[in-house]
Amino acid sequence: MADEALFQFLHNELIQYVYKSSEQGEMENARCITKLENMGFRVGQGLIERFTKDTARFKDELDVMKFICKDFWTSVFKKQIDNLRTNHQGIYVLQDNKFRLLSQLSAGKQYLEHAPKYLAFTCGLVRGGLANLGVKSIVTAEVSVMPACKFQVMIQKV
Amino acid sequence: MADEALFQFLHNELIQYVYKSSEQGEMENARCITKLENMGFRVGQGLIERFTKDTARFKDELDVMKFICKDFWTSVFKKQIDNLRTNHQGIYVLQDNKFRLLSQLSAGKQYLEHAPKYLAFTCGLVRGGLANLGVKSIVTAEVSVMPACKFQVMIQKV
Repeated sequence: MADEALFQFLHNELIQYVYKSSEQGEMENARCITKLENMGFRVGQGLIERFTKDTARFKDELDVMKFICKDFWTSVFKKQIDNLRTNHQGIYVLQDNKFRLLSQLSAGKQYLEHAPKYLAFTCGLVRGGLANLGVKSIVTAEVSVMPACKFQVMIQKV
Repeated sequence: MADEALFQFLHNELIQYVYKSSEQGEMENARCITKLENMGFRVGQGLIERFTKDTARFKDELDVMKFICKDFWTSVFKKQIDNLRTNHQGIYVLQDNKFRLLSQLSAGKQYLEHAPKYLAFTCGLVRGGLANLGVKSIVTAEVSVMPACKFQVMIQKV
């Protein structure tokens, strides 16, 4: 519980800080999102190296995705992804019904517009984790009712 | 182990980001340190509220400091402070012989000059935690041989 809080508070500070630099006219919203996504990417790269140090080699792409949904997600967010779907053509949808970084926000509709900044870091986290497992991807996120959240992973075939 | 890594990586990103904004001529070193210290302050404030939710009331200042050295430090850094000293006049020195945020850096003398940026957040963390327990303080840090580190807490009498 304490660890969760540490990550959450630090994550909030990060968002605030990135957006504050932006207020000084330096960056607009899209660039802030990109910055956060990039930070997530590098953290994801680092984490996955630690997490997979002692795991067996992955069978295939789906096996990698399952690892992200279970082990990776549990380490970072203290719960698993609730639902994983795929079209078997390189698109995966990871649904988290109570996404931790949104669960502190009011679920009211009026805060929906603020959701993207709370998701950017995590999109990067997933992309970075996958990248270091040799899976190139584009990760986007979508919220319709907080704190539920869907991450869409589009695998980029090389 | 995974949780540790998450905090550590995120903390590194934070430092990098703050210093990168500075490269753009926006801030010099001292301001970066202050920014990091302030972020630590707010995170410390938040954390201590969670941590002390179910603890008994503290007897005195020393009791508060012991809590910081044991429970608080363990939650954040996965180990206790190794040595706590005081002059009984409002100055406390907390020594960590293997400070986690420095332990990934090379212990060589040439990196000593980079130590302050890895300590600023933690100084703020302690100051914020104490502040929310009603103890106003100034916290500074000092490294002579990495990864050992001393935090000096000067209580500000109101």
